[in-house]
Amino acid sequence: MDSQLVVGIDVGGQTSKLGVVDARGTVLAQTVIRTDTYSEVEPYIAELAEAVKKVIKEADAEGKVRGIGVGAPNGNYYTGTIENAPNLPWGHSGVVEFAKLLSEAMDGLPVALTNDANAAAVGEMTYGAARGMKNFIMITLGTGVGSGIVINGEVVYGHDGFAGELGHTAAVRNNGRQCNCGKTGCLEAYASAMGVARTAREWLELTDEPSVLRNLDSIASKDVYDAAKEGDKLALKIFDFTGKILGRSFADFIAFSAPEAIVLFGGLARAKEFLLAPMEEAMNANLLPLWKGKVKIVFSQLKESDAAILGASALAWEL
Amino acid sequence: MDSQLVVGIDVGGQTSKLGVVDARGTVLAQTVIRTDTYSEVEPYIAELAEAVKKVIKEADAEGKVRGIGVGAPNGNYYTGTIENAPNLPWGHSGVVEFAKLLSEAMDGLPVALTNDANAAAVGEMTYGAARGMKNFIMITLGTGVGSGIVINGEVVYGHDGFAGELGHTAAVRNNGRQCNCGKTGCLEAYASAMGVARTAREWLELTDEPSVLRNLDSIASKDVYDAAKEGDKLALKIFDFTGKILGRSFADFIAFSAPEAIVLFGGLARAKEFLLAPMEEAMNANLLPLWKGKVKIVFSQLKESDAAILGASALAWEL
Repeated sequence: MDSQLVVGIDVGGQTSKLGVVDARGTVLAQTVIRTDTYSEVEPYIAELAEAVKKVIKEADAEGKVRGIGVGAPNGNYYTGTIENAPNLPWGHSGVVEFAKLLSEAMDGLPVALTNDANAAAVGEMTYGAARGMKNFIMITLGTGVGSGIVINGEVVYGHDGFAGELGHTAAVRNNGRQCNCGKTGCLEAYASAMGVARTAREWLELTDEPSVLRNLDSIASKDVYDAAKEGDKLALKIFDFTGKILGRSFADFIAFSAPEAIVLFGGLARAKEFLLAPMEEAMNANLLPLWKGKVKIVFSQLKESDAAILGASALAWEL
Repeated sequence: MDSQLVVGIDVGGQTSKLGVVDARGTVLAQTVIRTDTYSEVEPYIAELAEAVKKVIKEADAEGKVRGIGVGAPNGNYYTGTIENAPNLPWGHSGVVEFAKLLSEAMDGLPVALTNDANAAAVGEMTYGAARGMKNFIMITLGTGVGSGIVINGEVVYGHDGFAGELGHTAAVRNNGRQCNCGKTGCLEAYASAMGVARTAREWLELTDEPSVLRNLDSIASKDVYDAAKEGDKLALKIFDFTGKILGRSFADFIAFSAPEAIVLFGGLARAKEFLLAPMEEAMNANLLPLWKGKVKIVFSQLKESDAAILGASALAWEL
């Protein structure tokens, strides 16, 4: 066969990462362009297509690429469009026909598109921790909380293409925190990098507990992680709380699709040492007896610098 | 074709209903046997097989039956077994190889088995309100709350065959009611027939509000329904509360699989006139903007006396 390679593109709010990937998940060549300097989609697509052609050349892959996979916020697999993505300057209002535009700019090369968390799920299934699994739930713990649900080996897109918004299920029903989505109490408002920083700021204000975090002007989740590593008690409690919030939500997700595993990925998942125990404890405490102790929590095995490209690229194998 | 009919069997805690069904969903002949008078499965299966042969004869369907579908509590589609079903005297501990035993007793006729809520989902998709739908969630509001999830036209069974236990997701996270499953705060503890009666008893004790329900010695959900029909304010508030609890849980279910509709069935669903408005309101209030106003709540269209048999029988078309 002469078409044994794919291209993966991860469209982020600030930058877009792209690369040429082989069937084993090796990134042969990659590059990055800006996403946020374009207010219109056309010039962005033009530069993206140029960059794709460049990495294809660099990987010596001309004529060998069978398709392009794209992971993008609010990406719709059915239509290949990006719809009202708040963090994309050229995509925050209305519907952008992303897959069509990119395919045209790439002389008809087929393009598949989905949201970043679904792409991560396909990536993990193709190259990573979920290889061989037919039923799992991918949870991405980044700035927000994303999810990609796999049932019988296939990503769930639902009736409209937008299934898998588990970051916006209710973690707290009463007096929950305001979420960016407009609702309150969403899992994302507690269990994301943003949520961890919010918990820290809230608890510093509401308690007198001593903590190295009190010395900082502003707090990011990374600061809480660093403090926890030094044994700071408040920071450790914050991760314990975060893990428990996640674990009890996982129990509800498991009642839905009875997966073999929950697979975690993203910046916050690096705090595995502090999150795993409270997560497993709360999950098992809230599971029906039939699932107690039977559902694994596993962490992504993809190299973090490559993961976004790999996830997106994996989509293209299905084209 | 000479095999244009199927048999449906609904195994309930007290009785088992069975019937011969054609492709249009007409029940050609049916009967009922006891479930609860057998402490061992073998004599129960023997009587069941006799009854099946009798209805086949009655429907003039000898040689025309292509298979048997069974809906049973804790039924596992993958294995054809009933596992630890608390309400079945011959099945409450251990694993009963139901499909295998019945098939043997029926001279090798193929038997498919799943839990009652999944059977209801297949029935609704084959003959009822979900005809033509590829993505919906069936919620059965009976003594408990069951669910059957359909994605891309297929029931979700999950890794182990037990997916779709939405009655045991968290409706209330703190100080929730004790559920029969051993957990607290489950949707089933609030939004089932049992839950409605519990709400009534709780509110009668905690408030002074006048209500015709105060005159009763014991309260079942039917009493609350009758009182609501008479305009009893407390009874109306109970249904309003129940509808809201359901609606906000539906919002979380929708975030999972983005269905076209939630389909409701069961005794409590008869209170549609009191449940629908608060249900829709709470559901839409808790949905992400992209789904607000877009997901239907529909009620079963199957004749209630036939529904259990129809649901189970529909499974057999897939054999």
